[in-house]
Amino acid sequence: SNDVKEYENYFGMTLLDRRSDKRTDSKWLSRKQSHPATVYILFSNLSPLVTLGGGRESSQQPEVKLCRLCYKDVQECMNQTEECTLIFLGVDLQFDINMMAACKGEVPQEDEEDGLVAWFALSIDSASAEEFKQKHEDCYFLHPPMPALLQLPEKEAGVVAQARSVLAWHHRYRFCPTCGSATKNEEGGYKKTCLKEDCPSLQGIHNTSYPRVDPVVIMQVIHPDGNHCLLGRQKRFPPGMFTCLAGFIEPGETIENAVRREVEEEAGVKVAHVQYVSCQPWPMPSSLMIGCLAVAVSTEIKVDKNEIEDARWFTREQVVEVLIKGNQHSFFVPPSRAIAHQLMKYWIGMTANL
Amino acid sequence: SNDVKEYENYFGMTLLDRRSDKRTDSKWLSRKQSHPATVYILFSNLSPLVTLGGGRESSQQPEVKLCRLCYKDVQECMNQTEECTLIFLGVDLQFDINMMAACKGEVPQEDEEDGLVAWFALSIDSASAEEFKQKHEDCYFLHPPMPALLQLPEKEAGVVAQARSVLAWHHRYRFCPTCGSATKNEEGGYKKTCLKEDCPSLQGIHNTSYPRVDPVVIMQVIHPDGNHCLLGRQKRFPPGMFTCLAGFIEPGETIENAVRREVEEEAGVKVAHVQYVSCQPWPMPSSLMIGCLAVAVSTEIKVDKNEIEDARWFTREQVVEVLIKGNQHSFFVPPSRAIAHQLMKYWIGMTANL
Ligand SMILES: Nc1ncnc2c1ncn2[C@@H]1O[C@H](COP(=O)(O)O)[C@@H](O)[C@H]1O
Ligand SMILES: Nc1ncnc2c1ncn2[C@@H]1O[C@H](COP(=O)(O)O)[C@@H](O)[C@H]1O
Repeated sequence: SNDVKEYENYFGMTLLDRRSDKRTDSKWLSRKQSHPATVYILFSNLSPLVTLGGGRESSQQPEVKLCRLCYKDVQECMNQTEECTLIFLGVDLQFDINMMAACKGEVPQEDEEDGLVAWFALSIDSASAEEFKQKHEDCYFLHPPMPALLQLPEKEAGVVAQARSVLAWHHRYRFCPTCGSATKNEEGGYKKTCLKEDCPSLQGIHNTSYPRVDPVVIMQVIHPDGNHCLLGRQKRFPPGMFTCLAGFIEPGETIENAVRREVEEEAGVKVAHVQYVSCQPWPMPSSLMIGCLAVAVSTEIKVDKNEIEDARWFTREQVVEVLIKGNQHSFFVPPSRAIAHQLMKYWIGMTANL
Repeated sequence: SNDVKEYENYFGMTLLDRRSDKRTDSKWLSRKQSHPATVYILFSNLSPLVTLGGGRESSQQPEVKLCRLCYKDVQECMNQTEECTLIFLGVDLQFDINMMAACKGEVPQEDEEDGLVAWFALSIDSASAEEFKQKHEDCYFLHPPMPALLQLPEKEAGVVAQARSVLAWHHRYRFCPTCGSATKNEEGGYKKTCLKEDCPSLQGIHNTSYPRVDPVVIMQVIHPDGNHCLLGRQKRFPPGMFTCLAGFIEPGETIENAVRREVEEEAGVKVAHVQYVSCQPWPMPSSLMIGCLAVAVSTEIKVDKNEIEDARWFTREQVVEVLIKGNQHSFFVPPSRAIAHQLMKYWIGMTANL
């Protein structure tokens, strides 16, 4: 069950080592902020600044790439705007400044040079974003996020997932939920601290200070006969699209029981055995999709119309047809970069024997 | 890997069907609130009201049981206090009012009687709690929560995990994090809505309105030789206790990468293969512990003194000694109701072949 994980995990692979130890090293952070080798990625309204990946001779969808900016590009923006948020994302796993310096002869050799290429995400307000676009003609903010974000190169998608999730937290969690006061950002953007001196959130460690990650279960439900699976659709989906059922894990619930509860709630089908397959971060805004196979022990479908519009048993052949042969005239499924697609693929690659 | 899950999952088993469909049925909820068969469990400062499980002839630790109250017991409390929070927990999976009525001849048979026994958690302020204790001499609030909560019967622990996590959210998330205004509770205690009319949190669906669940990875790290495992200890642990490493999953991170990052951060050990084993809700205040086996590909330990105090490789024999034979003179591990214990047990039960 581990092979599927590492091969296709869009939003789960990254270019960076997070180096959380550096988040509390404010001297290091501020030195890196103005370092010429530092990479900035820009966000406006939770959309990343991208450009078209040029020169690809193909009839496929054009690939978009993150605009990798440097301190000089964003310096003005950062000083002008009040409303900007800066997140330290980590250091490049592949590049080293000394190596780059040797190539380009550009970077000053200092005592304090550690060779690490730092990455930051910078979120700017709409006015600054407008200005920025006028200066950089070939760049634009990728909006709406879905399905546009799925067009990024795999490793950049991981960086965007991290940055977008943390920025979304700053976006929505501006005030202290315990007392309603203003907060300040700390630790490279990974901590928020209440500014009211006697707030109870300052006594001890509380999750109110840390970014939120919402665990979600998503499950390929298998018919007791082993040869059908249960797929459903929500009203807001494009016509003809079906996918795995999913739902938020509730407080005090295991992954396995969340799977059973959601399948019964949404489709009226009872599930017994649940097997974890793989997971995927999903930055909409900050979910962790936990993908499972689930074996049904009942077959009658009773759709809860509040949650989904339709749910049906599909045969293995139907799924193979759509997934492998690309024959999408009867129904279609999410793209291969979505975990639902990977779960279906995992299932059809399996023996019928669980 | 699925057997361990279902057998020993303290905090993960429950007496209740959550019946989330009833959360929006305010007529049903208010009818059940005053129904004579309804079960109330009481909390003060996130501690549940319990009593000693009497009459057990054993030299073991006495078992504590939840005090199951009825509407009459809490009615006064609920009307007096401003500061009380009510959470609908679900309906009893085993009991049915009609059955009970047949036994006791107590419950009025009405048209609207659906036979469901509803459970609520009620959190009251310290003054009311004091009063309550005086009236009910054999009851007390279980405090501090750890390790006391581990003494509850398994199925009651699941109810407490659910209730305590949701109550902790209400406790800390009183104000709208988006605008700092007051909020109101809805949907049986599973939703908070900002009271400021033009708050952006009211446009669309946002996680600010829903309870928080913090996913955590906890891992049994196995030495490349297959015969040692890595256990560590924090300063605040009792002397001699060692356990699995653990840490919060960050935004944009997979379970597997969180395991790798935490082990490298805390102990300087590199991990390659990661395998999910089982999970456990941990209501301190609202975590989901995701338990994994992780195979190390390096062996030198470099402890990060900010995070842990010590980490060492222990032999399989040492772990067997402590876990099975109860021979705790060199070190000891968390009790069997903690997932760390279960992960170690899972490992020693396995063949060395992963
Ligand atoms: N959601 C969270 N709740 C509490 N602590 C968090 C959270 N996310 C990250 N942390 C960090 O984890 C540390 C506590 O970890 P632990 O000692 O394992 O409970 C805190 O000092 C924080 O730096
Ligand atoms: N953390 C959360 N964020 C958003 N919605 C949530 C959350 N927890 C529970 N929900 C519920 O899940 C529904 C959205 O689910 P979905 O359509 O799967 O995105 C919302 O209408 C809420 O009732």
